[in-house]
Amino acid sequence: MRFKLTPQNTSFYGQFATLATHIRDAAHLLQATVEGPPGEWESAARRLKELEHQGDEATHAILSAVNSSFITPFDRDDIYRLAARLDDCLDHIEASVEIMVLYRVGELPAAVAEQARVLTQMADLTLEAMPGLEKMHNLREFWIAVNSLENDADRNYRQMIAALFDGDRDAVDIIKFKELFDELEAAADSFETVANTVESIAAKES
Amino acid sequence: MRFKLTPQNTSFYGQFATLATHIRDAAHLLQATVEGPPGEWESAARRLKELEHQGDEATHAILSAVNSSFITPFDRDDIYRLAARLDDCLDHIEASVEIMVLYRVGELPAAVAEQARVLTQMADLTLEAMPGLEKMHNLREFWIAVNSLENDADRNYRQMIAALFDGDRDAVDIIKFKELFDELEAAADSFETVANTVESIAAKES
Amino acid sequence: MRFKLTPQNTSFYGQFATLATHIRDAAHLLQATVEGPPGEWESAARRLKELEHQGDEATHAILSAVNSSFITPFDRDDIYRLAARLDDCLDHIEASVEIMVLYRVGELPAAVAEQARVLTQMADLTLEAMPGLEKMHNLREFWIAVNSLENDADRNYRQMIAALFDGDRDAVDIIKFKELFDELEAAADSFETVANTVESIAAKES
Repeated sequence: MRFKLTPQNTSFYGQFATLATHIRDAAHLLQATVEGPPGEWESAARRLKELEHQGDEATHAILSAVNSSFITPFDRDDIYRLAARLDDCLDHIEASVEIMVLYRVGELPAAVAEQARVLTQMADLTLEAMPGLEKMHNLREFWIAVNSLENDADRNYRQMIAALFDGDRDAVDIIKFKELFDELEAAADSFETVANTVESIAAKES
Repeated sequence: MRFKLTPQNTSFYGQFATLATHIRDAAHLLQATVEGPPGEWESAARRLKELEHQGDEATHAILSAVNSSFITPFDRDDIYRLAARLDDCLDHIEASVEIMVLYRVGELPAAVAEQARVLTQMADLTLEAMPGLEKMHNLREFWIAVNSLENDADRNYRQMIAALFDGDRDAVDIIKFKELFDELEAAADSFETVANTVESIAAKES
Repeated sequence: MRFKLTPQNTSFYGQFATLATHIRDAAHLLQATVEGPPGEWESAARRLKELEHQGDEATHAILSAVNSSFITPFDRDDIYRLAARLDDCLDHIEASVEIMVLYRVGELPAAVAEQARVLTQMADLTLEAMPGLEKMHNLREFWIAVNSLENDADRNYRQMIAALFDGDRDAVDIIKFKELFDELEAAADSFETVANTVESIAAKES
């Protein structure tokens, strides 16, 4: 119901794409890390920390642009919310590798690489969806695809947890792996929240 | 401060009642499950998963109705928030039984049934409060009653946790029970958040 | 973009200062508690519970004032958000001492006192920043200082966690200490969220 004057400030789309690019890079690095040797976890954690900072800067740039713009391409609060939710994805990906390092997590079960692959797909879809915000195009497909991937992540998570308590694993190992599985699950949830936020924006604007 | 034209779209109240009915059913099923034999946990978990999906659909129907309505009975963002917070209640109830199954939790202490009874009362009160949204009636009583129940849940939670660390329980058992107690506590908190949301809506409209 | 009529309702600033005073008191009590003998943990937990209730009342007073005011000094939703985020700080400080008591946490590592000192500094800065809300003064300095302290807290937290898993500590002890460290970290995060909220308010109003 807001007035739409032309020319609109279109740089928001570019800023969202920048943020989503950092997320995509982080997800791919997570996948490479959990598939690679433990000796490279620490350098990956450092690189992810940098990506997290770049993500914070991209988020901050979006918020500054919102505050200094008289007209925004969609609802001001929705821009805030979407930027914050995208930033959450990056934070959870970064935190996953940090847990592996800090907790001295042992050999990863194969399901962790599976989970990382789901996150990579979610991150790729999220980056691809960003240009759609401009014309409110193909956003429903994005939402459906991410929700379907989140169901995969959820099934995978529950199998990992069940396996952890099935047998007589050491309690300290359970603590470590549960922390990692929970963080990966939080990452998958945060992509779903991004997709839901995008869908609610699309619903309002349509 | 919004214009109120007649006739208003009144279907929102019915949709909130539908969502609250699913929550009520879930809470009663949780109570029956923790009071019943472990052999029925898995079927209860499946039934709760269905209720959770029905809750998601009810929530989605509310959000779609908000987006397609020119006039809403109360503030658009408050409708969003209330629907999302009600959905949280259902999610935490479902997650509690899922934890019992996935973590192969052992014999439940009596306090778990006590906690489930508090949740059942909260869910009953929440369903009863929904018609009050239409006339903004009796909402303060609802808020007071739920807050009082949340205090009971909180006291109960703290006793369960203290008992867990008092003695020499096995660490793996502690992990499992703590997860269950935390989820039940999150369920109680989510009902309190619903009551607080309802109260803030009532305060704005009065 | 809201109209600013004079005289504005200025009591909001006083109410925020009251809430921040309770937080300041709670943080200093936390610091004294973790630096003092375990025999005083229980009485400190009771005193913090009282401060938490006073904080709830202060928060509630702010929300009531928002609802009954035609004109608010800054955006209504931002007032809600800032009050709620301040309340979170108090809740996490209170919960930290409650965990020490309920979980029968053993001798605290020195880093806990260090973490409490960071929280005390954050609480002092937050109280000092409240008058700045009236003229939107010195809020950027506040934001920078709190973010810097949060980085200290984060570094400290990661060292505490790494130390916990470095060696062969008992699993039950790990559970207890991890819970405490996580709660202290949540407290530090909540101060950062307050600072970010203040900064976003300042950005909108400038």
